[in-house]
Amino acid sequence: MMGPTAVNLRSYMQSAAGRVEQALDHYTSPAYLSGAPSQIREAMRYSLLGGGKRLRPALVLAAASLFSADDTIAMPAACAMEMIHTYSLIHDDLPAMDDDDLRRGRPTNHKVFGEATAILAGDGLLTLAFQVLTECGSHPSVGWHQMARVIGEVAQAAGVEGMVGGQVLDLAAEGCTLPAKAMQEIHRLKTGAIFRASLRVGAILAGVDEPSITALTRYADAFGLAFQIQDDVLDVVGSTEILGKPVGSDERHAKSTYVQLYGLDQARRLARREVDAALGALEMFGERAELLRALVRYVVERER
Amino acid sequence: MMGPTAVNLRSYMQSAAGRVEQALDHYTSPAYLSGAPSQIREAMRYSLLGGGKRLRPALVLAAASLFSADDTIAMPAACAMEMIHTYSLIHDDLPAMDDDDLRRGRPTNHKVFGEATAILAGDGLLTLAFQVLTECGSHPSVGWHQMARVIGEVAQAAGVEGMVGGQVLDLAAEGCTLPAKAMQEIHRLKTGAIFRASLRVGAILAGVDEPSITALTRYADAFGLAFQIQDDVLDVVGSTEILGKPVGSDERHAKSTYVQLYGLDQARRLARREVDAALGALEMFGERAELLRALVRYVVERER
Repeated sequence: MMGPTAVNLRSYMQSAAGRVEQALDHYTSPAYLSGAPSQIREAMRYSLLGGGKRLRPALVLAAASLFSADDTIAMPAACAMEMIHTYSLIHDDLPAMDDDDLRRGRPTNHKVFGEATAILAGDGLLTLAFQVLTECGSHPSVGWHQMARVIGEVAQAAGVEGMVGGQVLDLAAEGCTLPAKAMQEIHRLKTGAIFRASLRVGAILAGVDEPSITALTRYADAFGLAFQIQDDVLDVVGSTEILGKPVGSDERHAKSTYVQLYGLDQARRLARREVDAALGALEMFGERAELLRALVRYVVERER
Repeated sequence: MMGPTAVNLRSYMQSAAGRVEQALDHYTSPAYLSGAPSQIREAMRYSLLGGGKRLRPALVLAAASLFSADDTIAMPAACAMEMIHTYSLIHDDLPAMDDDDLRRGRPTNHKVFGEATAILAGDGLLTLAFQVLTECGSHPSVGWHQMARVIGEVAQAAGVEGMVGGQVLDLAAEGCTLPAKAMQEIHRLKTGAIFRASLRVGAILAGVDEPSITALTRYADAFGLAFQIQDDVLDVVGSTEILGKPVGSDERHAKSTYVQLYGLDQARRLARREVDAALGALEMFGERAELLRALVRYVVERER
């Protein structure tokens, strides 16, 4: 566990990523998926275990630990969020969508396994996420009713009212210069909804009261916006080597970005403003929330 | 409700399809999905409300009604199974998969909306299925624990250990002449798993004992096999007009079929043998199971 005030974020992130990867390895093992053809398991594992910051699972675990709920309670949900994130990357990279060849420094899923298998690996990961979420309900301190709420919220966040809807708007907007409001709406759905669900799900599983969930939701929304702005910044000033994908891809795909709309300096200011909003939302939690404070500061300091 | 022995299957199927379509319309309405962009809702509705036999939802409702559970209990699960079936058709029809232009007598989803939207419409329907499944838990006579079991079983049946895994094996087998056992394994996963889940889910929601669920599972497996054999038969002797898709597509895709392996007459005999096995599994239910008896007889008598 973290000390109450001094948080070593790097070590927390490394430790959380290690535990999450161990669990993801288990959920895609021949033992857990004994009825699955090996070629589709391998395609799923290629993307799921191929690096990544594990930021969404870290948020699930951090939200749960804020209310003293440990990994045994929150880990299935943490893994489910990473499976959903990974499936969305596999499908977004497809030739019919963003047509990207490189992801996390390696060839994209369809480049390695072919388009058909990549589509099915994404479908398989999305489905597996819901299978794994049902495991939350078997923990003695989690009620089935909480589990049902978690599944409902995750589905809404991942579906056409959330991530999938955001990708639809994003594709439709390619080549257009969007007003700020329309761009924010895309980000709120495409990336924000999953961050929001990650934090809420951790809190719901920990069994906290509604005001705490509301405060975490405010934190999550500011977190998601700061994350997206920094993504746009890194696409301009980042390094392909560190990012693991080519810089300048927003421009190539003719996507509207915060940098394009506001310029680099103003975009960075906006990101810091969102960090402040996120920190403000945590006030009611006092010193216990140091980990979440460190996480949102990291979002605008990161280089990938 | 049906009389105990005399079942008018046509009128049952029509009535069930009507109620299912009304519910599917609700679950994809602007009211239910108020946060979704209209273009993706339309793409989902094009395939979801574009005809079809509604066989899987009819099985969910029939299994539930065998144990006196009405539509208010089983309808969300019935709709979820149809959403999963429809998503699988949309993705299977994609150029990277079976590359089909016609489905249920109309252009396939990607022909109308483009590949990117078709992929996302499938993703959206799969996700919506799980969202809708959580509604089962809010019925006063269904426990959250039953709902969790239902979601777990549906996810397993739809995922890499079920339908998705079957599609992987099916694509890998194109152009090969498979031995009977390998072909059966593909069908058990690709189409059988969802029939099995449909019947089990109806029974689980009705709160029945394990021996009844086991008997229904035996019925379901024979039902699924009979259905698949008849599908292969219709692909040879059927009419494009009645099927709503071109006949001979198995041969074009170089797929192994029962007709190819056993010849038309022997394939028909095998289908009838499975019908007998399904009827045998229903013995313990006596006259109450007339509807399920009529359904499995229909499977080998149907022309589409």
